[in-house]
Amino acid sequence: MARSRDPETDRRFMGEALELARSALGLTSPNPAVGCVIVRRGRIVGRGATAPGGRPHAETVALTEAGAQARGATAYVSFEPCAHFGQTPPCALALVEAGIARAVVGCVDPFPKVRGRGIAILKRAGIEVSSGVLEQECRALNEGFITRVATGRPFVILKLAATLDGRIAAAGGDSRWISSPPSREMVHRWRREADAVMVGAGTVLADNPRLTCRIQGGRDPVRVIVDGQLRTPAGARVFTERSNAPAILVTTRANLERARIRYGSAPVEVLGAQTRSGEIALDEVMQEFGRRGWCKVLIEGGAHLAGAALRQRIVDRVALFLAPRILGCGLAAVEGLAFDRVRRSIRLAGLSARPVGDDWLLEGRPVVGLKAR
Amino acid sequence: MARSRDPETDRRFMGEALELARSALGLTSPNPAVGCVIVRRGRIVGRGATAPGGRPHAETVALTEAGAQARGATAYVSFEPCAHFGQTPPCALALVEAGIARAVVGCVDPFPKVRGRGIAILKRAGIEVSSGVLEQECRALNEGFITRVATGRPFVILKLAATLDGRIAAAGGDSRWISSPPSREMVHRWRREADAVMVGAGTVLADNPRLTCRIQGGRDPVRVIVDGQLRTPAGARVFTERSNAPAILVTTRANLERARIRYGSAPVEVLGAQTRSGEIALDEVMQEFGRRGWCKVLIEGGAHLAGAALRQRIVDRVALFLAPRILGCGLAAVEGLAFDRVRRSIRLAGLSARPVGDDWLLEGRPVVGLKAR
Repeated sequence: MARSRDPETDRRFMGEALELARSALGLTSPNPAVGCVIVRRGRIVGRGATAPGGRPHAETVALTEAGAQARGATAYVSFEPCAHFGQTPPCALALVEAGIARAVVGCVDPFPKVRGRGIAILKRAGIEVSSGVLEQECRALNEGFITRVATGRPFVILKLAATLDGRIAAAGGDSRWISSPPSREMVHRWRREADAVMVGAGTVLADNPRLTCRIQGGRDPVRVIVDGQLRTPAGARVFTERSNAPAILVTTRANLERARIRYGSAPVEVLGAQTRSGEIALDEVMQEFGRRGWCKVLIEGGAHLAGAALRQRIVDRVALFLAPRILGCGLAAVEGLAFDRVRRSIRLAGLSARPVGDDWLLEGRPVVGLKAR
Repeated sequence: MARSRDPETDRRFMGEALELARSALGLTSPNPAVGCVIVRRGRIVGRGATAPGGRPHAETVALTEAGAQARGATAYVSFEPCAHFGQTPPCALALVEAGIARAVVGCVDPFPKVRGRGIAILKRAGIEVSSGVLEQECRALNEGFITRVATGRPFVILKLAATLDGRIAAAGGDSRWISSPPSREMVHRWRREADAVMVGAGTVLADNPRLTCRIQGGRDPVRVIVDGQLRTPAGARVFTERSNAPAILVTTRANLERARIRYGSAPVEVLGAQTRSGEIALDEVMQEFGRRGWCKVLIEGGAHLAGAALRQRIVDRVALFLAPRILGCGLAAVEGLAFDRVRRSIRLAGLSARPVGDDWLLEGRPVVGLKAR
């Protein structure tokens, strides 16, 4: 049986598996988004991605398509095959039973209770296993799942779009369009890949956004409005816009009953959150979202929600689109922090920059800096 | 006579000439900073850069070093040799008289009254001339001279150092150190290459900067403080710090006498500028600096001077050092503009980004955008 062990070939087919996984991102929570291709004599005979809702898994889909051709073939899986008996037998066992001769695994499931057990099942059955092909890409793709399993809450991206001088709206409040069309399209892709998007009440009042995913093949994320003071109009588009995804209004527990009366007629869930120093405890809200199985939440502002999210240390990545403009007036992108020393401010580790249309996208991982740099 | 016409060799020796030119930047106004190497049989036999003050020129220095070896050699000059008789005969003629056989010219002097005349002298004398080697680099090096000749005023760089959210100081006013040591060192190199640095009175009050060039081989630029209301203390370090470079206080004509009394004892020149809508006319100030022969001015803030310089359209390049930090409070990098629409704000053309230490340096050419992008 001709089986490829050529690293370039392995990377190519893992790339195919990754593309399949990416197409399922945001649809598979609480499960990871996985892609699988079955390769026989250098030809793909089966493809699969985790189905919406998380079942069936990618391996099952790909094996079904491959049928008898799976016997003696190589399976490329972007994420370690599951090893536990649940509603269905584990995927590792399905690969064994289908007669797969070699398995190439993108990354090991880092969850301590799973880590390596899927691979162990394959090896015990005599399947040759190569792991760690495009490992970094495979891990990055499921950063949401990995974070939820490790911390109980979703991976949180804080997305901001500002001018070079850090403004998100002109003096009169106008904010259209700070970022370029390619940047806005990228954000719509991120919405598709997220379980939920979240904004503050101020953003709803200022921009009345729909928060839907308006690209081909898109599906709307759950839309979350954080509103401690119930300033959001019941007729806001985020409530009235047709969408398959629900809207959730997060307010304080004290305001819960009042919110239910006010927004009860709208198709909106009202969530009463704990407060800390008078501010909604966003970490508790994210834990609740984690319990719902959500893997990724995209915070899209405004300035005070951004400040609160950073202060409460729930942000895993800041993604800042900088438009090639200077406003010199208007609203700042982040408000409500109170550092008296620059060196105590929030530092972003691993800050990268890349052009997106006319803009530059800067991305980094926030760490609270207590020492001088 | 072995003369190289190999493009790679030409670029290499032009690179040597450029390095010599760069070492003279900021010292040669009102003349351009030029470098020259004389090459005989693949070996450099003479090197020269424009001397401080602009005389002697690079060609003279290099020819003197080469002596008799210049006969039949190739001269690499980063900027077109001068063609006019002034205190000394033109450099083009000096090259002819020294017996140079071939001349490689980085860029033509774009000043209409000069353009090509130096090269014409060489060609008429039978010297073979190649021009446009590393042309872009050679032009960029003398962007100051070129701008002054074309517009009458120096090339103006607006340098800002801010956090990702556009802040230049924390809530308590602390601004040390937003940018990383390599960024600060780069600014000191820029100070050496500029004829003058300029700040607003607010920056003097907040930071009490010296504005000197504190790197090896550095020389201080003229230090200019824009202060319409005479808020600058007479004991500010910019006045009291030992420096070979003078300090200039720019105020309104109405405040001129009062300023002379107040700062007369300090080693400081007081300049009374025209006002427009109550604001110092910075374009007039820059024209005055151009008349003094200055080629490059570095504006280092603060926020209101940055806003005024952008509003008055005297900025040729914005250089924004972005530190990997979020403050979420404190002072904005640019203040005092009043755009009611984002699309009317100042757009930066050709925005580039590159890492400098932990920071990202974003640079672009401001254009006032009247149309949507």
